[in-house]
Order: sequence, then C-alpha cells, then structure tokens
Amino acid sequence: MSQTIISVDLGGTRVRAARFDRRLNLLERVETLTLAKEGLEPTLGRIMAQIEAIWPANGSEVVGIGVSAPGPVNPMTGVILSPPNLPGWHNVPLSRLITERFDRPVFLGNDANCAVLAEARRGAAQGYSHVIYITVSTGIGGGIISHGQLILGKQGLGSEVGHLIFSPESGLGGSVEKMGAGPAIAREAVLRIQAGAKSIIRDRVGGDLSKITAKVVGEAAAEGDELGIELIARTGRLVGVLIADLMHLFNPEIVVVGGGVTNAGDLLFTPMIQAVRAYTIDDDYWRDVPIVPAALRDDGGLIGAAALVQTVD
Amino acid sequence: MSQTIISVDLGGTRVRAARFDRRLNLLERVETLTLAKEGLEPTLGRIMAQIEAIWPANGSEVVGIGVSAPGPVNPMTGVILSPPNLPGWHNVPLSRLITERFDRPVFLGNDANCAVLAEARRGAAQGYSHVIYITVSTGIGGGIISHGQLILGKQGLGSEVGHLIFSPESGLGGSVEKMGAGPAIAREAVLRIQAGAKSIIRDRVGGDLSKITAKVVGEAAAEGDELGIELIARTGRLVGVLIADLMHLFNPEIVVVGGGVTNAGDLLFTPMIQAVRAYTIDDDYWRDVPIVPAALRDDGGLIGAAALVQTVD
Repeated sequence: MSQTIISVDLGGTRVRAARFDRRLNLLERVETLTLAKEGLEPTLGRIMAQIEAIWPANGSEVVGIGVSAPGPVNPMTGVILSPPNLPGWHNVPLSRLITERFDRPVFLGNDANCAVLAEARRGAAQGYSHVIYITVSTGIGGGIISHGQLILGKQGLGSEVGHLIFSPESGLGGSVEKMGAGPAIAREAVLRIQAGAKSIIRDRVGGDLSKITAKVVGEAAAEGDELGIELIARTGRLVGVLIADLMHLFNPEIVVVGGGVTNAGDLLFTPMIQAVRAYTIDDDYWRDVPIVPAALRDDGGLIGAAALVQTVD
Repeated sequence: MSQTIISVDLGGTRVRAARFDRRLNLLERVETLTLAKEGLEPTLGRIMAQIEAIWPANGSEVVGIGVSAPGPVNPMTGVILSPPNLPGWHNVPLSRLITERFDRPVFLGNDANCAVLAEARRGAAQGYSHVIYITVSTGIGGGIISHGQLILGKQGLGSEVGHLIFSPESGLGGSVEKMGAGPAIAREAVLRIQAGAKSIIRDRVGGDLSKITAKVVGEAAAEGDELGIELIARTGRLVGVLIADLMHLFNPEIVVVGGGVTNAGDLLFTPMIQAVRAYTIDDDYWRDVPIVPAALRDDGGLIGAAALVQTVD
C-alpha cells in the first residue's frame, strides 16, 4: 500500500492543504480563504474540511499530518500560542484536535521553520546541511538548519532572527525587525518626505502619506526613485548585518532570503551582500557561501509542513 | 585493559596536559609555561613532551587525544589558524603532527567550545542539552550546545558570539566584544576620568591612566567606587543583550558565563539579568532559565578537550 503525507499551511489569509508522497512530490492540493476575522471555530472548520478533502480516496496510508502555522507555536506540544494575524487563537492545541479527528500523528511548525525545511528539501538549499533562511516582509523571521537539524531549542522558540538587537539604547525597538522590516521602510519614507525629501512616492499615494507601504517604496525604487532606492538599500544593509551575525554563530553553507521585500531584487541584495562582507571578521565566513533568493513561493509552506512529517522517520 | 583519554590545554601562557578515564575522571595532570614568545617550535616541543609525560605507564589504552587551543581553529581539519596570542602559529596542522608522533586520533577544538563541553559534562550545565556558554575577559567568546550538539558550522567557525554587532554604524568596532570586553572597560574608564569623573581608579594606577585595566576597574567597583560599578554594569547590560539575542536564536535551558570579568559577581550579573528580561520578546525565553557563573576554572580546558574525544564514541 502506498504511503502519503498530508500537510496544511495555515496563513493569515489562506488555508492550503496538500497530499505528498514519501519523497515530497506534490500529488494534490486545495486552497481556501482563512476567515481569520471570524475567529477560531470557522477557521478550524476549514482546516478539518481541507484535510478531509485531500484525504487519499485510493486507500493509501496517511503516515502523518504536518501543519505550518504563524508563530509563535510550540512544536513540542503542538500548540499555537497567539499569532498576531490569527485573532481569537490563543493556546490552541491544534495537533491534538487534528489527531482526535483523523487518528494520525500531527507535527506542527512555525511558518519560517517550515520555509527553511522546504528550501532545504525542494528549493534553493537542496543538499546543504547548514542553512540560514531569512524572510523580510511585515516582519523579519527565520529558520536555521545547523548540522542537518532544525534549531528549535527547549520549547521550540529558537531561530527568531528578527529580534536581534542592533540598537540597544532603543530597547526592543532596536531589533533588526523593528528597524528594517516593511513597516520600518514605510515609516522612514514618511519621515523623510515630511522632512522635505523629493520622491515619486508622494504622488503614488495621492499625497496621503499614511498610504505609503513598503510595496509602494519598492515599486518607486524599481523606477529609479532615489529615496526608494536608499530605503531598500538601508534594509538591505541591516539584513546584511543580521546575516553577518548569523554567519559568526552558525558558519552556514548557504543563506536563503525570502519574503515580499526581496521583490526589490538587486536593489536589496547588492547592499546586503556588501554589508555581509564588511561585517564579518574573516572572509572564510562568506567566501563560497551563496546568498540567494528563496526558490519556493506559494507551495513553500505546504512542502515544509510535509517535511516536518518526513524528518521524524 | 582500561581505556584512557589524554587531553592538552594550549593557552597563551600555559600548556597543561592530563589523563582521564572514559567517564572524564581526572587521573593525572601536568602543567608548564607555554613559551609562546619563543614561537612555534619550543611550544610544540612542550606539547609533545607533556603528552609523553602523561602517557599511561600501566599499559592502559589511549583511545584518543583532545586538544583545546585558542581560536580560530578548524576542528574538521585539526589546523590552528592564527591565534592572536600565539605568535608564529599560522595554519599549524597540530592534529596531524600529534597523530604522527603518537599514532592516536586527535580532536582539536577552540577554547570556548571546549569550555562549553566541560561545563555541560562536569560543570554548571550538567544534564542540559541546550547550553549557551559566554566568556567575558580580554575578548568575548562562546560555545553553544543546541539539541545536544556543539554548534560548529561547515568549517567549525560557528559559536563566535563576541562578534555580534550592536552598533552597525560603527562597523566591526560595533561588536559586543569591542564595546564590552575588558579592553573596552579600561578604555571607558580612561575616557570618563579624563572627562572629569571622580574615582579611586586614578589613585590605583598612581595617576598613570595607561595602566588602567578591567581588573583594576573591577577591584574599584568591589570597594564601592561609583565609576567602577557603572562600568561593570555597562558590560553587564551589553552581555545581557547578547544573551537575549542568543535566547531568541537558541531558546537554551541554561546560560553559563565565565571569564575574568565575572569576578565582579553580582555587580556584573544583576544588570546582566535585568537586560536579559528587558530585551526578550516573551518571558518564556528566560523564565526557568538559570544564568549562572562557570563552575570550572583551570581544569575546564582539559576536561573539555577530553570531552572532544568522548563525543565521537
């Protein structure tokens, strides 16, 4: 009898589910809206319905169910703690609820940890056993594989790369996430335009500076707008320092950078790589270490969640 | 036939060697000066002579030889790269040289990595599998055990905690080591006294500010000197931010802090622990996580080097 893995990718806007074979080949997938605003029960119902929908009709055995969810989650207990973008979800024992319904082992991981597993198995980091994955979007998150193993720590709270402090005098506001992620890009744009900087960004939002987002800044940068280019470069430099920090700690073989802000391409990557070189104490840390964009987009969460099941073989 | 492990602790001022049983009980030790100033050959000679001196006379089998050396070292190739406090040592294939002489497998580790192994096996972190070790002296170094495994990375260059950047605008000078280790404590004392701060430190060095060291500052602090207390607290806060960073990445069970600056005791640890609490995003990171002084002193390097042999069982 053939064996399959089911995985679920629970996001703030969508729930996806898929069935894979043991080699992580995608067999079938379904997708729907999360209904996050309606709270816990409707979304839980959608998750169960999707697993039902994707269940193999041919009688093949489901060896386990993997779930990718927004952090913080506790992968050891299978509990979703209180993700900012899933209102009403507090200490939800998702693994237990799914196990009770489907009688299969369930493995829960946060989205960034699933993303690094996916990149290592099927994406940009295939074949590597020391991998840093960083996502730069509304937050800065990450997943780290060191010596072939996901770095989780005692309660699964590890690999939170976005909270490294770059400006101790600013308290937690001095973290790389607060200083460099999407909202910081937008905030800096507002401040600089208010201070008199010339930019097409102001026109893009019809003069309403509250409408400025990192996406708008990135699009302006792509068209050659000087302020836009500088702000994307600023985040590139900050993420580059973060990568240098992580290189000193993990001495990785490859660094993968994903998330919406990477749509800026070289405008982000060039200053980022320059900072990596400037902030490492020895060239050995970055020489022969590719720093590349993530290869997987929408299916990354599903593949990573399926890999959670596979890793426990 | 009983089995033994031989270990060597190569430091800037001393070479120690010891013989252990398989359970890391110390059987015998010898110690001599390093003769670092005379360069490579005399010190190499001392290492070989010490291994010879400690070799079991009763015919028991030596299963391996572990060596702790100042970083940077490459534990995979057994090469000592170019430690600042071992002049004349550049790319020395120490493991191979010892193997050629004694016909036993040799395992090389940097001193901070050996220290964390020693604390985990025989010191303050016994029984834990997620351990952060930080040493604060003339530099800031570290060793990290995550999921029971030493974090080395692809070339063994990982766990370099002292190079995390706290002040990106200062380049590599903005690392926690440059900002907070012993030389920074002394430098800050000089600057503040030159700026008019009152302190018994000036008298302690007979008015010659170039003689100020972190040790002098620590001794003044112990006697209630306000400037001394503030400068030790400043380093405590910086190390506390470093610990918070490492907690977000590794979610450890215990943090062990060693090195000369920890002689300041609570004057260092109290502000350090306050900073840990202030800079972590969730109490779960530090609640129930002891932050304790290192338990091992002079024999830590020997025990850790012996543990290098033991880990490969």
